[in-house]
Amino acid sequence: MGPEEFRAAGHELIDWIADYRARIPELPVQAQVGPGEVAGKLPCRAPEHGEPFGQVLADLEDIVVPGVTQVQHPRYFGWFPSNASLASVLGDLASSGLGALGITWQSAPALTEVEEVVVEWLRELTALPESWKGVIQDTASSACLVALLAARERATDYSEARGGLQAESAPLTVYTTRQAHSSVLKAVALAGYGQDNLRFVDVDPVTYAMRADALAALLEADAAAGRRPAAVVVNVGTTGTTAVDPLAQIVPLAREHGMWVHVDAAMAGSALLLPEMRWLVDGVEGADSLAWNPHKWLGTVLDCSLLYVADPGHLIRVMSTNPSYLRSAVDGEVTQFKDWGIPLGRRFRALKLWFHLRLDGVEAIRARLRRDLDNARWLAEQVSSTPGWRVLAPVVLQTVVLRHEPSGAVSETGVVLDADTLNAHTLAWADSVNASGAALVTPSMLDGTWSVRVSIGAERTERQDVEELWRLLKQAVLESRPGTSPTRSPTS
Amino acid sequence: MGPEEFRAAGHELIDWIADYRARIPELPVQAQVGPGEVAGKLPCRAPEHGEPFGQVLADLEDIVVPGVTQVQHPRYFGWFPSNASLASVLGDLASSGLGALGITWQSAPALTEVEEVVVEWLRELTALPESWKGVIQDTASSACLVALLAARERATDYSEARGGLQAESAPLTVYTTRQAHSSVLKAVALAGYGQDNLRFVDVDPVTYAMRADALAALLEADAAAGRRPAAVVVNVGTTGTTAVDPLAQIVPLAREHGMWVHVDAAMAGSALLLPEMRWLVDGVEGADSLAWNPHKWLGTVLDCSLLYVADPGHLIRVMSTNPSYLRSAVDGEVTQFKDWGIPLGRRFRALKLWFHLRLDGVEAIRARLRRDLDNARWLAEQVSSTPGWRVLAPVVLQTVVLRHEPSGAVSETGVVLDADTLNAHTLAWADSVNASGAALVTPSMLDGTWSVRVSIGAERTERQDVEELWRLLKQAVLESRPGTSPTRSPTS
Repeated sequence: MGPEEFRAAGHELIDWIADYRARIPELPVQAQVGPGEVAGKLPCRAPEHGEPFGQVLADLEDIVVPGVTQVQHPRYFGWFPSNASLASVLGDLASSGLGALGITWQSAPALTEVEEVVVEWLRELTALPESWKGVIQDTASSACLVALLAARERATDYSEARGGLQAESAPLTVYTTRQAHSSVLKAVALAGYGQDNLRFVDVDPVTYAMRADALAALLEADAAAGRRPAAVVVNVGTTGTTAVDPLAQIVPLAREHGMWVHVDAAMAGSALLLPEMRWLVDGVEGADSLAWNPHKWLGTVLDCSLLYVADPGHLIRVMSTNPSYLRSAVDGEVTQFKDWGIPLGRRFRALKLWFHLRLDGVEAIRARLRRDLDNARWLAEQVSSTPGWRVLAPVVLQTVVLRHEPSGAVSETGVVLDADTLNAHTLAWADSVNASGAALVTPSMLDGTWSVRVSIGAERTERQDVEELWRLLKQAVLESRPGTSPTRSPTS
Repeated sequence: MGPEEFRAAGHELIDWIADYRARIPELPVQAQVGPGEVAGKLPCRAPEHGEPFGQVLADLEDIVVPGVTQVQHPRYFGWFPSNASLASVLGDLASSGLGALGITWQSAPALTEVEEVVVEWLRELTALPESWKGVIQDTASSACLVALLAARERATDYSEARGGLQAESAPLTVYTTRQAHSSVLKAVALAGYGQDNLRFVDVDPVTYAMRADALAALLEADAAAGRRPAAVVVNVGTTGTTAVDPLAQIVPLAREHGMWVHVDAAMAGSALLLPEMRWLVDGVEGADSLAWNPHKWLGTVLDCSLLYVADPGHLIRVMSTNPSYLRSAVDGEVTQFKDWGIPLGRRFRALKLWFHLRLDGVEAIRARLRRDLDNARWLAEQVSSTPGWRVLAPVVLQTVVLRHEPSGAVSETGVVLDADTLNAHTLAWADSVNASGAALVTPSMLDGTWSVRVSIGAERTERQDVEELWRLLKQAVLESRPGTSPTRSPTS
């Protein structure tokens, strides 16, 4: 395709996207397709000859759109906000259009330097320590793996350069809580620590935050048993309940044992743009790394995760390679982001952050985040003050974990008496809301029982959408009959 | 930014990209900026209020474009082809515009199923085994890491679920050649094997391909010494010289020792669309995994790497997590790509492959690949038949490794007599070509001496551009004076 064909098709696609975004509120939130339905509409071979653009656009409309859960919908309250602001979409288009190759500074100096500048803008906006340096990763999963690799290599004095982790004698251990995101467990497995060496620290039964005294006791016991504490992953805004582990109390314990402190603030990091929310990371100046995802609540289109580290020199030593064909005369004067993560080749991801911040402006972004926090507080108040309903965890951010409790299923103090009935009821009404397409919420296990997470923060969610959700939830409970919902495995 | 503002700005940006692509031939290939020059033009804080789109577009033009090495230029012969076809740019724009969230099948069924279909299209086009399944990764670096993690877990019967790699006694070893891409060394380090357990197999001195007899001998010796061969990375089209390791001879040795066979065909994989090039992977039906990058020579815009595996069940067991908030009633009936790689959240990357193949068509892509192979053969003939010039490795793909040899520096049989003079000369003329902006080539070490790689395959490179390059190279040699070039570290 040449530039002029691209121009014509590009204008069509821009119009299509603008129209699509405008009519999202009319679409069902949850995709209404069954397994294999989308694949069944596609030919089983690639076309030998080029097809007209109109045909591809028609398939985008007729096959793809109905097959996508509309996370940009104002009544999307599912997993977590996954905003794709239109300003950032333009930045991403600029990146693809440029077609730059990020393998070294030399291959695209601007790709490296705009990233350095924008990541520093966000460091300043989130008040992270001035000496920290950041890099864009694809996701917090990768960022957590990178952090745990850095921790492993610090604890073993760079075993990768010798016999590897397999040559180590005393086992390295990693600490977090059962509220940690699944990516933490995955990173522990992939980095080679082994599941047996992942220690789950007890949480407070009300806040679901890590108990520092429990961590201290575990550390003492492990050290006494000859284990080597290597890292603690501190959760700031857990996926389940947005619990906030007490970083300031954890840091001194980590220092005592020489442990790496990684802060996983994947969703909550956006809140650090608000000065009144900076308490979330009190004590961060004593941490080693922190990751958060502008591609969630902030709204820079996927994939855009920020990893900040206190000691970039160490990270570079762990991740660097230096083959002859990537060397140049300016090495040593420039940043080589290939040595800050796993992939060698990198997109010009900084452009989507740059466009997003410049076109929307920080003031408007802060106002939107505050709107969402207000909406969550409003919903929590409605739920708490309505008989039969309960808010199950403190609402410190934009997520409300709630449950409707049929009489007899739960005691007055909140003890679950009849878990089977309660679970069937919860899944039934939540699934009926989701199946209707009118809104989307996420069933989730808490203390072994199903609850429902309402994660507020889609870019277009206004108060009226939260009011409508609350009406839908109450209506779904009235209409649902226990035992009619599809089951799913309760094991984790 | 709302849909209407997006529409207006989007049209401007599409026009800008079309114009930019059309005028790339007039731009210098190598970015003409020094360290810090781009960053110095940007403000040190994010703007509090939104800026007009025209201002951002002006900065894209004035600051970013001069700061980018133009890998879409017809006289870009650097690292490797890094094509960003305009059809795939549209697909990527559709992905961003949709703003879909790929965490589970449920979150975006079409994201999963279009990926399954398109990856199968490419399996069929490249004649990989019918039973193999594929997934899109960001880069071959990540794909190689995933493969070596899968190998580690197969060799240790899933140590990740117990004490991890650190609990293993006999060391696992990995095999490749010194011609392997730096990402292989990095993956070995990150997966915890340790550098001491990466065994470099001797290569043939003419073809730079792995010697199967040398591998057999190493394996015998390692097994006898109590080491456990876990994986071999077979290079199909090395970065240095596009050497092709003899897969069909390696597979039986790997089977004998129970080793995982990963094929790294990052750049060369595109050639498998040509039936006459399928010999590159003779024996592939006995391998365990293969990765190649449509984002290189094929031209699907970064980042788009394909990883195929023979046993997806094993990969899924290594990479899977199953938290309650990601469970649904259709689990078991659908593919969950989160369990096929490191990141949980995934972009709708299949769209750029889908758009690319459908809008350009396979026939046109094949014709372009054949054009590039022809151009490489033509250049190699010119070089070989010109006194003072030498082609240093067999030209089996689209890369020509060459050198100009001043009299006295190299013997008639090709033995380097005066490496210092030769290196200074090579770097001087190559750097002068690159600094001119007229073309870009990559200096690279081969057998301890600097050579120059000419990697042909930019989408817009026609024969006349290769002719012009050859003229530029000869002219640069005539004009260069040894000893005037910046030096760089020869250590690897």
